[in-house]
Amino acid sequence: MAKNTKKIALLTGGGDCPGLNAVIRAVTRTAILQYGYEVIGYKFGYRGLYNNESIPLTLDTVSGILHKGGTILYSSNKDNLFDYLVEENGKMVKKDVSDVAVENLKKEGVDTLVVIGGDGTLTSARDFARKGINVIGVPKTIDNDLAATDVTFGFNSAVSVATEALDRLHTTAESHHRIMLLEVMGRNAGWIALESGIAGSADVILIPEIPYDLNKIVEKIGEREKEGKLFSIIVVAEGAKSKNGDVVISKIVEDSPDPIRLGGIANKLALDLERLVKDHEIRSTVLGHTQRGGNTSTYDRILSTRYGVAAVELIAQEKFGNMVCLKGDTISYESLENVIGHTKDVDPNSELVKVARSIGISFGD
Amino acid sequence: MAKNTKKIALLTGGGDCPGLNAVIRAVTRTAILQYGYEVIGYKFGYRGLYNNESIPLTLDTVSGILHKGGTILYSSNKDNLFDYLVEENGKMVKKDVSDVAVENLKKEGVDTLVVIGGDGTLTSARDFARKGINVIGVPKTIDNDLAATDVTFGFNSAVSVATEALDRLHTTAESHHRIMLLEVMGRNAGWIALESGIAGSADVILIPEIPYDLNKIVEKIGEREKEGKLFSIIVVAEGAKSKNGDVVISKIVEDSPDPIRLGGIANKLALDLERLVKDHEIRSTVLGHTQRGGNTSTYDRILSTRYGVAAVELIAQEKFGNMVCLKGDTISYESLENVIGHTKDVDPNSELVKVARSIGISFGD
Amino acid sequence: MAKNTKKIALLTGGGDCPGLNAVIRAVTRTAILQYGYEVIGYKFGYRGLYNNESIPLTLDTVSGILHKGGTILYSSNKDNLFDYLVEENGKMVKKDVSDVAVENLKKEGVDTLVVIGGDGTLTSARDFARKGINVIGVPKTIDNDLAATDVTFGFNSAVSVATEALDRLHTTAESHHRIMLLEVMGRNAGWIALESGIAGSADVILIPEIPYDLNKIVEKIGEREKEGKLFSIIVVAEGAKSKNGDVVISKIVEDSPDPIRLGGIANKLALDLERLVKDHEIRSTVLGHTQRGGNTSTYDRILSTRYGVAAVELIAQEKFGNMVCLKGDTISYESLENVIGHTKDVDPNSELVKVARSIGISFGD
Amino acid sequence: MAKNTKKIALLTGGGDCPGLNAVIRAVTRTAILQYGYEVIGYKFGYRGLYNNESIPLTLDTVSGILHKGGTILYSSNKDNLFDYLVEENGKMVKKDVSDVAVENLKKEGVDTLVVIGGDGTLTSARDFARKGINVIGVPKTIDNDLAATDVTFGFNSAVSVATEALDRLHTTAESHHRIMLLEVMGRNAGWIALESGIAGSADVILIPEIPYDLNKIVEKIGEREKEGKLFSIIVVAEGAKSKNGDVVISKIVEDSPDPIRLGGIANKLALDLERLVKDHEIRSTVLGHTQRGGNTSTYDRILSTRYGVAAVELIAQEKFGNMVCLKGDTISYESLENVIGHTKDVDPNSELVKVARSIGISFGD
Repeated sequence: MAKNTKKIALLTGGGDCPGLNAVIRAVTRTAILQYGYEVIGYKFGYRGLYNNESIPLTLDTVSGILHKGGTILYSSNKDNLFDYLVEENGKMVKKDVSDVAVENLKKEGVDTLVVIGGDGTLTSARDFARKGINVIGVPKTIDNDLAATDVTFGFNSAVSVATEALDRLHTTAESHHRIMLLEVMGRNAGWIALESGIAGSADVILIPEIPYDLNKIVEKIGEREKEGKLFSIIVVAEGAKSKNGDVVISKIVEDSPDPIRLGGIANKLALDLERLVKDHEIRSTVLGHTQRGGNTSTYDRILSTRYGVAAVELIAQEKFGNMVCLKGDTISYESLENVIGHTKDVDPNSELVKVARSIGISFGD
Repeated sequence: MAKNTKKIALLTGGGDCPGLNAVIRAVTRTAILQYGYEVIGYKFGYRGLYNNESIPLTLDTVSGILHKGGTILYSSNKDNLFDYLVEENGKMVKKDVSDVAVENLKKEGVDTLVVIGGDGTLTSARDFARKGINVIGVPKTIDNDLAATDVTFGFNSAVSVATEALDRLHTTAESHHRIMLLEVMGRNAGWIALESGIAGSADVILIPEIPYDLNKIVEKIGEREKEGKLFSIIVVAEGAKSKNGDVVISKIVEDSPDPIRLGGIANKLALDLERLVKDHEIRSTVLGHTQRGGNTSTYDRILSTRYGVAAVELIAQEKFGNMVCLKGDTISYESLENVIGHTKDVDPNSELVKVARSIGISFGD
Repeated sequence: MAKNTKKIALLTGGGDCPGLNAVIRAVTRTAILQYGYEVIGYKFGYRGLYNNESIPLTLDTVSGILHKGGTILYSSNKDNLFDYLVEENGKMVKKDVSDVAVENLKKEGVDTLVVIGGDGTLTSARDFARKGINVIGVPKTIDNDLAATDVTFGFNSAVSVATEALDRLHTTAESHHRIMLLEVMGRNAGWIALESGIAGSADVILIPEIPYDLNKIVEKIGEREKEGKLFSIIVVAEGAKSKNGDVVISKIVEDSPDPIRLGGIANKLALDLERLVKDHEIRSTVLGHTQRGGNTSTYDRILSTRYGVAAVELIAQEKFGNMVCLKGDTISYESLENVIGHTKDVDPNSELVKVARSIGISFGD
Repeated sequence: MAKNTKKIALLTGGGDCPGLNAVIRAVTRTAILQYGYEVIGYKFGYRGLYNNESIPLTLDTVSGILHKGGTILYSSNKDNLFDYLVEENGKMVKKDVSDVAVENLKKEGVDTLVVIGGDGTLTSARDFARKGINVIGVPKTIDNDLAATDVTFGFNSAVSVATEALDRLHTTAESHHRIMLLEVMGRNAGWIALESGIAGSADVILIPEIPYDLNKIVEKIGEREKEGKLFSIIVVAEGAKSKNGDVVISKIVEDSPDPIRLGGIANKLALDLERLVKDHEIRSTVLGHTQRGGNTSTYDRILSTRYGVAAVELIAQEKFGNMVCLKGDTISYESLENVIGHTKDVDPNSELVKVARSIGISFGD
């Protein structure tokens, strides 16, 4: 019997990111309302594709989710069907089970798979494209570090949460003469720290791309004191690194016989600064996953919706194997073959870093 | 005696817009910290320039204002020194008093005037440039309707306020089966309505650029009912217009002998819809100036700061007569001669309007 | 056959109010987890009871609703089963159909009916109690005007929304020298205006309980000017009344041949003030239903949860015919017979009004 | 020469707390507007009183501070003039320097000293009262643990910040099946954890007053899994304690040769839980001082204002040696002699704890 309408499937992979639901909603609504496609969603990312766990996505299913963080399709981290942990003869072994996924897509009658995820998730998407599956990618990273797109959704939401925290810390820092450390996400790229630092009026921004020198931070605090500012706000990306290994005191912890989590760089830095800066109490806040959840910002809702609509347009035009992206203010697309593995770090010579320096922010370098 | 450093003056003109203080701060800090310039600010826009009312702008003056709406320099609306109301022989007459301003700048030793304002304010800036004054313009409009720049600061803040209001209205609309009307700013351009409508999950968006037909709105409400959605959310720009003059009932008010303010289009529309839609209570909210004040959004703080730094860079490079702007994600500049009078309306065929239509939003057309 | 467990039914009536879902959740969870009761909810208030439209309420149904405005049970306004509009012989007539409701409760096996509503909804609850139904009432009014309880949920949320709007209006009022009018809810009681006025730093608060004199408002604006404050913020309750009928200009509108909605008192007042206050632009904001929806405040979530748990405790103790309430900081209860019709207006001699006057707020009297 | 008006002095002591500025504003405005008193503020708490560092407090000084966290008077921690560190003959020694303070008050002509602070700060206030100084106390603690007053300002703000963080963590926890730990303030009293846990829909609340058993937490997580909830939210007060010393793994850190700060109990608990709970990633957030700063909540602005007005009323009535407080919904006062040292812990048998248990929250006991 002839099949008249297309059937598309969605999945979300990797860590949480505000805007996932907005993409799911935009894809579903556009597919149904504009093209009459059928839409399903695999649960738990690629794992659901392997286990054939899917739910129908209808106008009702995606109702009321635009503003919500999280993903109604759930997600899984690090599940790679090309190198997947399965039980075989009572043992757990890693195998390429991508054929199972391909088979499942066929059985289900899925014409196109829309994959929303970060670099890892999209790598698999590319690999499925190589296997002949019609794939469309939608980039997702809270860190804004994908080279192929100017902005990723979730980033503005994360920066806003961090900025609001900096606003809060300011009043206390000022009236109680404190050094306040705020640790934000960014293991490899310092975008969240950079933008929230500028927006939240930080005095020092520490990012992985510009290794810091403890003494320079102490200097900056001293300079501010001379100007009558008896407090300082430091925003530090998770992945910030010292220039010359001057993190001494907290090394004791790392040398402990047991692998120990210290709650991040902010706490280490607080320990180190405490020895060098007198007359100031130092306090740290670790925002953690509050940056990844909650209500999606206005900016991200619009960007996610644009991505979602664009993904369906690519399907309608049969431009498979591509990822939607934003160039300047224009929605565009790029081959998945070209985007994988290309990250976008903060360039220490970029306009934004210069802007920060111009208004007097120190990078501890 | 030789004057060693430059002196720059700032003024803000026109309606309020979140981000003005952030620009003032960025200009002041960059000018002082990077170039050792002296900075002053004229109060009340051009009026202060005419009356020679200025205050010094120092690191202290601009401390703690980054996130705050409003302008520490105050503003005035519609003050045009080239056509200014002055008393002469006991009568109020309109005169060109721009020479007084030029004289004041000279006496004060101001090298460059940085003007932050909308089309009207910048027109005067251009006219002062023509008179030989070193002028740098910074675009300001909450409506995002300047052709020369992709985005203006204040716009994201306004859209966020409107979106939050839509979020609030949603819960009640849904559980109480209401038609909710939200009136947002936008007399000539519908950008705020368009973006907040997409972000806030509106069912109908009414903007000046796309005249509406009352019956189409009623139709949309009816369609939703058939899908089991017993509520609808309508966001309407102040300047939204009916296609065929079908605003009947509220005409009575307009025909009254006395000019009467009805609190805007939302109330008129509510009156009209009430006659046509049965079984639904209709409620309207008029956000008014809550869209122009309060804390500046993260996005706008960064954009304003970039504009402010860029304005000082133009001064340092002696590129006078220009306005800073954003092209894609790049800060740039454009001659004031070219930017005046060029507005940017919502193009009914633009990607963003299509995105809205794709996910099922009606424009009442 | 012996029935082993109790079955309780919930319904929500009247206008929207943040906290309804929190009560529904707390009743359901406590009933199931602590007592093993079965719980159902009638949809659309009493109408659902009449039409026997109910849904089961389980741990799953009430999951994720604590913070959400609205009510998952929907509501209806003004449906009184003791005087209900029904079709009879082709005509709509008003009849007492309460016996149908009683019959439905019996058929469904409902032991106790929990009614969440305002004075009107609770009047019916009392009437059902008089008919022998086991009823527990939970007070709901955004206006905080129930005599039997010190605080009602929803009120703190509404005050917070109004206060945030006042915060936003402040920055613009100050930098642009505006008179800003904010209209908030409160047709008969001025609590929202009073508390948001104190919290939002208003200069004038107009409430139904203290009729105002236009000239006194103008006087206050003048006094502020003398102190160098060239702006004023006025918060006005919907039901605020003029002392001596000095609302002149806007009468034209009211005298129009067609009943016309002006979008409330704020717009009328703006018209009137505009004639009397020179040199100031006057702007008004009408918050409308944004005060009733959106996320429930922390305070209201806790109060609603306490009410919900207390309602189930009353059931367990078979203390029927009562309404839960808050006295000081203690949860208590009161007979429905005693609470109906007793409202709590703002006492012009109360501590809170005196506090407002002490810090210089005018009531326009 | 006869002195006609009173002069009152304010100081703020101890840690930051939203509402301090609101008290300062209310005291100043009421004192000036209602009684014509002169008002000054000592900077840096008691240290400023010792060093005679004061500023005049006028209507202008306190303008625009109502909503702001922090204190315009600054504060100092642990400065006790009855046991104060001073240099004497080149050495630092502890001395009673309270007479210097008394002398300063006399020289300055201060009639009454208003002290805003927590238990430590108020202890000194009482001691100054014993020395014959006219003192009025205003209670300040974010922890809400003062026995003499039902509610302290700052508490609602802190609970709201924590609740918002829990809201944010929820979406990610749910869609990514995480165990989320949120560490909130509360070294000795668990009020913030208790209220934010109820309001933020936590599954487990750990407070100092109810020691926890790790296994019970693991049990609760397991129970939720059986109900299909693959995530859990745990809110933990800084001072939460294990029942039987089952914190094993993180002991390594504590046994380190160097005193080490781990960023709090949340990180320790995460380490411990990680060993016991499989198949879940565990993430922790440490809110730190974001709970103490930023905008003051609506509730706290009103309470602070009431306290401030009441403090001046006590001065007018010459009821010295007292602290203002809230009993139920009534502002009252209590002798400083009676309030010092009386804290209010969470009673494990209180209604609020029972409410939490009723809706299924575990205390890990």
